[in-house]
Amino acid sequence: MERRLRELMPGTAGPFALVKEAMEYSLFAPGKRIRPILCLAASEACGGDPEAALTFGCALEMIHTYTLIHDDLPAMDNDDLRRGRPSNHVVYGEDQALLAGCGLLTMAYEVMAGAGQTGLVDPAVATRIIAETSQAIGWAGTMGGQSLDMIFTKRGDATLEELELMEFAKTARLLITAIRNGALSAGADANTLAKLTVFGEKIGLAFQVADDLLDVTADEGKLGKPVGSDARQGKTTYADRLGLEGARELLAKLLHDALAAIGDLDAKAEALRAIARFIVERTY
Amino acid sequence: MERRLRELMPGTAGPFALVKEAMEYSLFAPGKRIRPILCLAASEACGGDPEAALTFGCALEMIHTYTLIHDDLPAMDNDDLRRGRPSNHVVYGEDQALLAGCGLLTMAYEVMAGAGQTGLVDPAVATRIIAETSQAIGWAGTMGGQSLDMIFTKRGDATLEELELMEFAKTARLLITAIRNGALSAGADANTLAKLTVFGEKIGLAFQVADDLLDVTADEGKLGKPVGSDARQGKTTYADRLGLEGARELLAKLLHDALAAIGDLDAKAEALRAIARFIVERTY
Repeated sequence: MERRLRELMPGTAGPFALVKEAMEYSLFAPGKRIRPILCLAASEACGGDPEAALTFGCALEMIHTYTLIHDDLPAMDNDDLRRGRPSNHVVYGEDQALLAGCGLLTMAYEVMAGAGQTGLVDPAVATRIIAETSQAIGWAGTMGGQSLDMIFTKRGDATLEELELMEFAKTARLLITAIRNGALSAGADANTLAKLTVFGEKIGLAFQVADDLLDVTADEGKLGKPVGSDARQGKTTYADRLGLEGARELLAKLLHDALAAIGDLDAKAEALRAIARFIVERTY
Repeated sequence: MERRLRELMPGTAGPFALVKEAMEYSLFAPGKRIRPILCLAASEACGGDPEAALTFGCALEMIHTYTLIHDDLPAMDNDDLRRGRPSNHVVYGEDQALLAGCGLLTMAYEVMAGAGQTGLVDPAVATRIIAETSQAIGWAGTMGGQSLDMIFTKRGDATLEELELMEFAKTARLLITAIRNGALSAGADANTLAKLTVFGEKIGLAFQVADDLLDVTADEGKLGKPVGSDARQGKTTYADRLGLEGARELLAKLLHDALAAIGDLDAKAEALRAIARFIVERTY
């Protein structure tokens, strides 16, 4: 994954060296790479070509990194630390950070379209993946979720229902998309795609519940970002709403439901199952 | 064009009403719609289907609007007025403006991929247009140009060579892309595409020279944004570098060269020729 990400980034930058450096600063910071791993594992579960899934997975990591850069900006969550390093705008300034984020978003599309042009997947599959990804990350997806997050944080309160809607849009949809893009790149049938989507919905929610718990309980050095940031910003989290114990119970139920959704897939889905367990049990 | 733009925007927004409203606030502000017009005219010059060109043209207008929203942000050019109205962030706040911009960028890709899915163009054409557009607007295109603009503005000086490089990336490439996307959607042959690309390079530069002149000479009410903004921000312009008369001479030469590049295209290219004249002679 690290190798493919570096291959996909341009070798020389000419006069545009600063913004390219800003893009790479965040893209190559240590990360869990959950989205490309999910994309690869979903492809494997469908017997797909790992090269195609790897490419689409790297595009999703670019998109994820773009959201991190923008979310950290002063106008958003105003976080100075990310993946154990100063945030992008702390190093490169707000202007270059904003551009580097959009540069990664745009490059992700170049990579996805390129997979259709070079025959890694059929062009019709590439256009479907591009359209679905756009919906998942757009105004009613990741960006819409961040929009609600800002609104709820300013308002200082959110109901559990609002919180679920926001987190589904902001976090879960991109994780579901990672799974679906892997499956689509592997030519999955509609039935398998439906099962994997339910799996994605469950672990997408679990990912967020685990994130909220870690913001309360984690070791800051291991987490790579400030602990207690949600509380300082007045964000309502699952840990607030359900208590630590209630949140842990919800996590266990989500893991159970996720594994049940793909229960009749064979041993090729073992990697997916392992990732689901990691997401629930992770400490960083 | 206005009708198609409205058709392409989602009808209902549910909980994401604020960010959708922010997107529409800027997208439906009065604009010249130069990019979709160029896309349509280039398609017409190649005998293409106007429905396909209209769709790709609207995607480019979404991308152009996204760049305007982001360029106006306090971290960028810090302009409070755009298209005759308060800038997006003045009305919706910096957080929602940033998201609305990325929402429009993402929707543009959904629209371009959708044209391949619904048969408006072959999916292979759609993936080519998406890949080329990404390169034109990315870290070495529009965004790279804005990155250089911020660097040069902070430095307080730029050579004519640097200025040309910056403006080519920031402005001309998207105009060239509008022309190429129209031609590609019409199935243009490589020879015609090459001629139209030269035409685009000439009018792309002319557009910027005219913009610089208007920043000095225009009527603010007609222009819809503050006059003298470049000078206040310490930006180096063609008007500074060449003087008003020198800039006007350059404009005339660029128009001549643009028309020469498409001299052997027939009457179907009349609309393109008229747009070239408008770009050079415009007063807003």
